[in-house]
Amino acid sequence: MEKFYSTLFARQQAAHDMPSNVRIWEWARDVFRLMFPERNSKKLLTVEAVKATFTILENELYDLLLNSKDCIGCDHREIVQRFFENLPHIYHLMLEDAQAMLDGDPAANNLSEVIRTYPGFLAICMYRMAHQLWLDRVPLFPRILTEYAHERTGIDIHPGATIGRHFHIDHGTGLVIGETAVIGDHVKLYQGVTLGALSVDKVLAGQRRHPIIEDHVIIYAGATILGGNTRIGHHSVIGGNVWITSSVPPDTTVFHKPQIQFIHSKVDR
Amino acid sequence: MEKFYSTLFARQQAAHDMPSNVRIWEWARDVFRLMFPERNSKKLLTVEAVKATFTILENELYDLLLNSKDCIGCDHREIVQRFFENLPHIYHLMLEDAQAMLDGDPAANNLSEVIRTYPGFLAICMYRMAHQLWLDRVPLFPRILTEYAHERTGIDIHPGATIGRHFHIDHGTGLVIGETAVIGDHVKLYQGVTLGALSVDKVLAGQRRHPIIEDHVIIYAGATILGGNTRIGHHSVIGGNVWITSSVPPDTTVFHKPQIQFIHSKVDR
Amino acid sequence: MEKFYSTLFARQQAAHDMPSNVRIWEWARDVFRLMFPERNSKKLLTVEAVKATFTILENELYDLLLNSKDCIGCDHREIVQRFFENLPHIYHLMLEDAQAMLDGDPAANNLSEVIRTYPGFLAICMYRMAHQLWLDRVPLFPRILTEYAHERTGIDIHPGATIGRHFHIDHGTGLVIGETAVIGDHVKLYQGVTLGALSVDKVLAGQRRHPIIEDHVIIYAGATILGGNTRIGHHSVIGGNVWITSSVPPDTTVFHKPQIQFIHSKVDR
Amino acid sequence: MEKFYSTLFARQQAAHDMPSNVRIWEWARDVFRLMFPERNSKKLLTVEAVKATFTILENELYDLLLNSKDCIGCDHREIVQRFFENLPHIYHLMLEDAQAMLDGDPAANNLSEVIRTYPGFLAICMYRMAHQLWLDRVPLFPRILTEYAHERTGIDIHPGATIGRHFHIDHGTGLVIGETAVIGDHVKLYQGVTLGALSVDKVLAGQRRHPIIEDHVIIYAGATILGGNTRIGHHSVIGGNVWITSSVPPDTTVFHKPQIQFIHSKVDR
Amino acid sequence: MEKFYSTLFARQQAAHDMPSNVRIWEWARDVFRLMFPERNSKKLLTVEAVKATFTILENELYDLLLNSKDCIGCDHREIVQRFFENLPHIYHLMLEDAQAMLDGDPAANNLSEVIRTYPGFLAICMYRMAHQLWLDRVPLFPRILTEYAHERTGIDIHPGATIGRHFHIDHGTGLVIGETAVIGDHVKLYQGVTLGALSVDKVLAGQRRHPIIEDHVIIYAGATILGGNTRIGHHSVIGGNVWITSSVPPDTTVFHKPQIQFIHSKVDR
Amino acid sequence: MEKFYSTLFARQQAAHDMPSNVRIWEWARDVFRLMFPERNSKKLLTVEAVKATFTILENELYDLLLNSKDCIGCDHREIVQRFFENLPHIYHLMLEDAQAMLDGDPAANNLSEVIRTYPGFLAICMYRMAHQLWLDRVPLFPRILTEYAHERTGIDIHPGATIGRHFHIDHGTGLVIGETAVIGDHVKLYQGVTLGALSVDKVLAGQRRHPIIEDHVIIYAGATILGGNTRIGHHSVIGGNVWITSSVPPDTTVFHKPQIQFIHSKVDR
Repeated sequence: MEKFYSTLFARQQAAHDMPSNVRIWEWARDVFRLMFPERNSKKLLTVEAVKATFTILENELYDLLLNSKDCIGCDHREIVQRFFENLPHIYHLMLEDAQAMLDGDPAANNLSEVIRTYPGFLAICMYRMAHQLWLDRVPLFPRILTEYAHERTGIDIHPGATIGRHFHIDHGTGLVIGETAVIGDHVKLYQGVTLGALSVDKVLAGQRRHPIIEDHVIIYAGATILGGNTRIGHHSVIGGNVWITSSVPPDTTVFHKPQIQFIHSKVDR
Repeated sequence: MEKFYSTLFARQQAAHDMPSNVRIWEWARDVFRLMFPERNSKKLLTVEAVKATFTILENELYDLLLNSKDCIGCDHREIVQRFFENLPHIYHLMLEDAQAMLDGDPAANNLSEVIRTYPGFLAICMYRMAHQLWLDRVPLFPRILTEYAHERTGIDIHPGATIGRHFHIDHGTGLVIGETAVIGDHVKLYQGVTLGALSVDKVLAGQRRHPIIEDHVIIYAGATILGGNTRIGHHSVIGGNVWITSSVPPDTTVFHKPQIQFIHSKVDR
Repeated sequence: MEKFYSTLFARQQAAHDMPSNVRIWEWARDVFRLMFPERNSKKLLTVEAVKATFTILENELYDLLLNSKDCIGCDHREIVQRFFENLPHIYHLMLEDAQAMLDGDPAANNLSEVIRTYPGFLAICMYRMAHQLWLDRVPLFPRILTEYAHERTGIDIHPGATIGRHFHIDHGTGLVIGETAVIGDHVKLYQGVTLGALSVDKVLAGQRRHPIIEDHVIIYAGATILGGNTRIGHHSVIGGNVWITSSVPPDTTVFHKPQIQFIHSKVDR
Repeated sequence: MEKFYSTLFARQQAAHDMPSNVRIWEWARDVFRLMFPERNSKKLLTVEAVKATFTILENELYDLLLNSKDCIGCDHREIVQRFFENLPHIYHLMLEDAQAMLDGDPAANNLSEVIRTYPGFLAICMYRMAHQLWLDRVPLFPRILTEYAHERTGIDIHPGATIGRHFHIDHGTGLVIGETAVIGDHVKLYQGVTLGALSVDKVLAGQRRHPIIEDHVIIYAGATILGGNTRIGHHSVIGGNVWITSSVPPDTTVFHKPQIQFIHSKVDR
Repeated sequence: MEKFYSTLFARQQAAHDMPSNVRIWEWARDVFRLMFPERNSKKLLTVEAVKATFTILENELYDLLLNSKDCIGCDHREIVQRFFENLPHIYHLMLEDAQAMLDGDPAANNLSEVIRTYPGFLAICMYRMAHQLWLDRVPLFPRILTEYAHERTGIDIHPGATIGRHFHIDHGTGLVIGETAVIGDHVKLYQGVTLGALSVDKVLAGQRRHPIIEDHVIIYAGATILGGNTRIGHHSVIGGNVWITSSVPPDTTVFHKPQIQFIHSKVDR
Repeated sequence: MEKFYSTLFARQQAAHDMPSNVRIWEWARDVFRLMFPERNSKKLLTVEAVKATFTILENELYDLLLNSKDCIGCDHREIVQRFFENLPHIYHLMLEDAQAMLDGDPAANNLSEVIRTYPGFLAICMYRMAHQLWLDRVPLFPRILTEYAHERTGIDIHPGATIGRHFHIDHGTGLVIGETAVIGDHVKLYQGVTLGALSVDKVLAGQRRHPIIEDHVIIYAGATILGGNTRIGHHSVIGGNVWITSSVPPDTTVFHKPQIQFIHSKVDR
């Protein structure tokens, strides 16, 4: 056992003195709540208070980065500045996403319902914030943010993915979007869809391994689309549970024509 | 940026002063715990204390509704009264569900295990409470309740769905039950099952878009059943990963006869 | 209503005075954090403090067991002792798992990222701890531990399953591993894979109902493998969405050759 | 050190399994807040909710007593019942006290200010509740309640003291009222007053050791009145810093005529 | 009992919907901590973040006032503005007070020790903030602030008192400064000093009832100085336990020449 | 205002990165609770767990010291070691104090009551721990510990004071014991007693300024004893409110023979 304790102690010592996941989550959640006060934000009575809250959140991100030893070469101040300068644009994209979810789901009654209760909305918002940090090569934080959403929603979007505007997710549990996937505008994805890699050979790190989904594509529940050379053409519809590893031209409906067997099996009851 | 702040400020001002999701969740969780003290309820030593705790929870629901601006026309007092009058019946249904999960799973050892650890049990209980509020047209609350369960279990049941007695869910992650689905008694659903809509055109809002599942049906993992005209007849068994968009007569076993290819590929190791 | 209150009161009285789920989770989480300080552990400055923290966690497990009425016959002290004696070995297995996840995922950058953000890592670690308690026939605790991981990750591993070394899970949402499944070394599983039972007849409790997966098998997203007599031979690859209910010889690639229909459907836009 | 650890361990084992001070305080604080909602009580919307909250607090007291090993012979149920049956009367006394504090202090603006901010009000309320438990010979709890008030206000009233109606305390820091003191109605006490014992010989336990203060007496800051045979007659006024160890007839003003020396000491500045 | 419940229910309904004491305290504590980061403030990395934190605290005060029904006629916005415009001046006074406490106490080592551990410093700071609100006739808040300090320090300063610069309190427990007291600059007060009223007749509300203490006065422990016509001249020293009800000229040392009796009482031991 | 912000910002930057008061308190409280489990300690089931908890608390003190920039030259490890090596002795002293308080107060029923509810016990325990750190010249911590007790009890003992065995405090509010006071064994002090300095000239820092109290002395409420040359001989009794600035021989009873005036003032009622 002594050796075990020594090992763990060594690990304690070596452990990068990074901010905890919880603290990073809380920062992201607070940014999110400030933009969508329906999500339990504190009441702010003046424009100045809104602005000041952003300044506090800038301060917090700055402090998080400073305490993040992995990012020693980073120009933390610029990263913070860029993040918050881009936030109005990101916010605009989030609102478009919420609207897309409202328009695309007959069960949705209003924007407030989408913002407060749609897991897809939480997931895409966390992705959009994480992606901005990813673009600035901040290590680890982006993954922590999207994993926060994954834990709560079952929707696993890699922060490196590229996702267009008016993005719609419904239900979403089990949805996976890989690191190098590229998704156009007005795309709709349902639960259990995988945009994955054909091979997960480690030597492929850095290369494109995930598909391209063009504009106005709909992909139904459980469909699996794999490979860096796979491109789903615009305005195509991919049916549920379909398995695709090569490209699909535009304006195509692809559906699974399952071999289903029916057995009548009335038994005594 | 100033325009961004103004926009967010306007949103702050316009935001309905609704109770937070957290507060609504806590109320539902407390009702749930009172009925199933295995789930960490406070110890109550007399029948009077049980009754009093319900009165406090009535008070809380009443206060939540009063503070819920969307529900201005509601007769809050009647909604509260009906909810708690129906609770003994709902509780009875929940116990039947727990028993069904115990009976249907060889891995389950006793009712206490089901109540404490089965995600399906949490999900159906939250649905049953949410559904009662849905019937009384309470806005938003029912969705918040079922989304609470969705976040914790990956089981996404719309509060508008109609679900019969002795309902069994196993594992459950990725299960989706749509707003207008109708499910009979003694139905068993596994993980990743979708009871969804064929089309999600917004004009269909209010119409039935999801299937009917009759009594004693079993639907295995990953099966997808779509459409408002699709009816799965009683005592049918739907195999895993099956994709169904039209009705199935009673006493039918439907299974996916997959085209599977086997390639022997022994390589040097 | 009075009868309802009496029923609930009786339930209160009968309820085993068990430690709450939350307290059991916190114990497991603290053991986990002590081994992986990247997960927010308290800073410990000496080997003695590491060792002492284990002693405290031993005390807590001991107290949890003592307060767990179901386990009245248990030799609690021995259970605690065995758990902590086995922990260095379990820890070694966890590190191998983390390494396997890093090696097998081109998107992973380093071990710290895997430990902090991979849901599969949390799930396998909770399973490994729960399994040790399962082997010692501790009731309920093991299920509470794996359900803790299930709630956070969507990965549902029964504590009774047998899982080998260098286990790799990617994404993982919807993954189900049944009670009597046996998994070899160097196995990779993706999201939505089910290792389940063909039948869930209650009389099968105690018998083997779930498949055997030999060494070096890869099973892609959404594949379903069922039955206690189903054995997937070593070095086989099971494609996504495949449905298997009988054995597969070693060195075999099995893939779903879907019947997919393409319809070109260009419409006026 | 090993012996030290063993000693502490023995103490752990021997320690009565009593409810913690914090839990007892919280109970008393909740009773207090229910009667004086200005002190942060939860909002209650119906009379039934008020009543139910009392029932919950009865349940809590009952549970506290049951877990209090010292009180093994107690008829806990009767103690609880008597406490809550007497509460309306106690409440009435508290309101009279608040009114007396308002009437007696030119700086007080309204009853709400007294209830929310007067330490004397908190202290007398905690005493009145503690005294009821004292009369029922509940061990330890009464002291825990008055010490709660002592910690917050610097006012140390022994729960065994007998205090009449319309009791006024101003400022109060340092006020001490001993176990066998008897105080009439309409009495006013200021900060630093001691109603103490002349001797603290342990053999006096159980005997009257503290003074009697008759109705309408005012005792100013820092006065010390000692002894079980000391009686301050009604309508007397005891000046600040006075030291009294024998009785004072009614309608008497007692004041300290200090020997004060004045030295003019102008120095260069 | 029913009548008791109804009474409490009526009180619930009538209770002004005021912010809780706790929320008001937290605001004051946060302002205090921002000015004295030694007292556990959050780390702020830029001047902008400091400024923003003030804006948030302005927002909070504004919200507190808006929710304070007693203050319906108040121009809340102006009150907030004036409070924060005066804060730099108040801060300057606080620093002077801290310096006075450091200079006047041989046991004090540095300013940081005074700020972190001197109860007198907390008390004077809370008074200075409360007094600003008092000048603006905000009801109840000022008392809540000074009572917060009273509870923690035993120092009871009425927010209406007028206190000059370089104010020194040592130990402080039991110190009372009445509503209409006026205190000059460079005054030192020790524990148990009372600056009180000779009479507490309610008709005196609004009149001056407490003494005037001129510059450079020192008042030792336990001294009591009473009355609105009592003026302690500058550079006077008032000895411990002295009782004064009339004025003292400048440059005077007043001390208690106690009649002390010594009895030699050697007993057998 | 900008200048104010800059000033505060500079203060932020300059602020020593010290552990917060709260964290230091929690450490001391945890040590205290471990020794007196009546004060809400966690239940420990083995001697090893007791020992381990001390190791954790050693770790915490070590970490606190390491993060305490003022103590840069300290040999932290030795300080920690000495503190915990002395703890058994300190514990023994604390038990003697508790016994002295039980023996000396007719109102005390048993040791458990003293430990759980006597403010004097909390104060002397915090002093004894603080004094050990003081002897090791740890800056600031000792003051933070005794001020913690002062805030809760109104008893202000400087950590530099020297206090003998079997120390008895009753009530205690307002008690002040200065930095260089020396107190023998079997001494009893009541509320409002001051052992202070005659002069507080800053140049006296480091010199003895406070009295010596020999063994078996009793000092009643409100007595004030001042000066570094003042020595109260053994077995003396100092009466309440007495003011002493010179030495008192052994075996002497000193009491205040107050000039009290009685005025009969019967008025019409």
